Amino acid sequence: MEKTNRKIGKQSIELTNAVYIKESASIVGKKESEGPLGKLFDVTGANDLFGCNTWEEAESVLQKEAVTLALGKASMTENDISYILAGDLLGQCTASTFGNAGRAIPFIGMYGACSTCGLTLGLAAVLVSAGYAENVISVTSSHFAGAEKEFRYPLEYGNQRPPCSTWTVTGAAAFVVTDKVNNKNRAEITGITNGKIVDSGMKDSMNMGCCMAPAAADLIYQHLLDFGRIPDDYDRIITGDLGNVGQRALLDLLKEKGVDIEKQHMDCGIEIYSKSQGTESGGSGCGCSAVTLSAYVLKMLKEKQWKRVLFVPTGALLSKTSFNEGRTIPGIAHGIVLESC
Amino acid sequence: MEKTNRKIGKQSIELTNAVYIKESASIVGKKESEGPLGKLFDVTGANDLFGCNTWEEAESVLQKEAVTLALGKASMTENDISYILAGDLLGQCTASTFGNAGRAIPFIGMYGACSTCGLTLGLAAVLVSAGYAENVISVTSSHFAGAEKEFRYPLEYGNQRPPCSTWTVTGAAAFVVTDKVNNKNRAEITGITNGKIVDSGMKDSMNMGCCMAPAAADLIYQHLLDFGRIPDDYDRIITGDLGNVGQRALLDLLKEKGVDIEKQHMDCGIEIYSKSQGTESGGSGCGCSAVTLSAYVLKMLKEKQWKRVLFVPTGALLSKTSFNEGRTIPGIAHGIVLESC
Repeated sequence: MEKTNRKIGKQSIELTNAVYIKESASIVGKKESEGPLGKLFDVTGANDLFGCNTWEEAESVLQKEAVTLALGKASMTENDISYILAGDLLGQCTASTFGNAGRAIPFIGMYGACSTCGLTLGLAAVLVSAGYAENVISVTSSHFAGAEKEFRYPLEYGNQRPPCSTWTVTGAAAFVVTDKVNNKNRAEITGITNGKIVDSGMKDSMNMGCCMAPAAADLIYQHLLDFGRIPDDYDRIITGDLGNVGQRALLDLLKEKGVDIEKQHMDCGIEIYSKSQGTESGGSGCGCSAVTLSAYVLKMLKEKQWKRVLFVPTGALLSKTSFNEGRTIPGIAHGIVLESC
Repeated sequence: MEKTNRKIGKQSIELTNAVYIKESASIVGKKESEGPLGKLFDVTGANDLFGCNTWEEAESVLQKEAVTLALGKASMTENDISYILAGDLLGQCTASTFGNAGRAIPFIGMYGACSTCGLTLGLAAVLVSAGYAENVISVTSSHFAGAEKEFRYPLEYGNQRPPCSTWTVTGAAAFVVTDKVNNKNRAEITGITNGKIVDSGMKDSMNMGCCMAPAAADLIYQHLLDFGRIPDDYDRIITGDLGNVGQRALLDLLKEKGVDIEKQHMDCGIEIYSKSQGTESGGSGCGCSAVTLSAYVLKMLKEKQWKRVLFVPTGALLSKTSFNEGRTIPGIAHGIVLESC
């Protein structure tokens, strides 16, 4: 009897009919190229303007180039792609707009703050697995200078950064999701768990890790429940950008619920920079989890060093207006099960 | 032989296995309550603060109340809903965040500017029709004062408004999309067409209608092509918020392509205010198409005064940063086929 894809548990979809990440591409800025993963990225910039006049324009170029490169690596053209699912951190997601304007592909804009990579990949898998598309591109980005301007202070102000703060990754990654079996496919997507908004009352925009940790804990706990699995069923459980401070909070919160993921946990924000790079708690941003997935996680799955991982980008749902008006910073997380194939 | 849902043409999905809008709810501000559709909305506010201290908080309350009311009208609770798909115009979509925080439902944030109602309804139909969810809520909102602050000038500045400008609707509407047949269902969703980003080079943020008209024309043309239909196959072809000026541009652009929709065309932005209300070209915003769909379009379908309509919310993809940096204002449109049932 043929198995079918289906809703499973409270927040998940099980994809027994396979969906694959056929190819991916990553492009990062100078600082990221100097980090521990530096040599794994496809393209690195000599500076963070990428030939543009503004940080926002540069971030659009990151998305555009990531998509172009992913298409090239997959030996595909725009005609092969049914949808682009894209998102970023800028107000009204303009990095996605200008990065994908001019492409003759239906465009689906999504917003999950730094969890957007998980959100777009999940929906890409939904469209492909349902038979509504053969190939879909997911692309997400962030830019350090653009994010500082959007959420915090102008760079020229030279504000101090507390030890719990994170450094927004300058980078973008694009993924081609397909239903076609091919021995070059990078990984298989076998499950999706979408998160609820979790508001723990935190208000400190310099401690995003702790704003997001409760949402990550909620997602991981619910995911294991929905699929009837334990942490040992995964080689890695990978959050997006909790950083060192947020990681501690996540591990503690899960232990309170009786779940220990200390052995499996990895955070893209911790992996992407070395301690000597002065990024305090680690990296963050929509680009952080996306470029780490493309350059490192998919490599480990392709090499079968890992068999199955739970990839959980995490997002802090604030704007400068909501912050200035004294509101909390709710978190969200979206999970994808990736398996070697 | 059972028909199946499938990709059709370049940008569309045909839903032969039915998906329904079970119920919907609309809530609007004072000005909207005084317009031609005023008596049709479920809830109207005495003023536009809805008991809150800020415009942004008020917009969150609009989303929250719309969802609560839609659930009530559908005799459902949060437990019956698999996903909330939400979006708005504020930076980082915070009206959606704070409007839906606290709900125990997976949250999928989407951004398509004022086209977001079409985007969220389409993806809701995808999730339900694929069997990944039984019931999904789509909710979108906008707020006049919040949008003026976000995109244009503080209200206190009292800027003049040119005749081609539109007035952002204060309002939200929520829709319960389901796979369950029920004679109380409001309408059937039988098709989805997602739009490309169309950048015609326009830069005038006071003439959003003309920024979006090329995207609407592109979407409607492609939709008819994908489904092999002519305008006469629809009782109405309904755009979101082109206003009087944008409507003229749309009709002319389609005539250039040999398609005449003069007889069928209706624009929510034109319907929602009367000329005496001083809104210049008409209404706009994510809330404009959403509340008009909920209060008026679904009513006409339920009463079988219309058999089939193409609902095409339209969005202008700008931010204040992209505008201030001199970039263009690309447009997008997302279409849904609604039929009486």
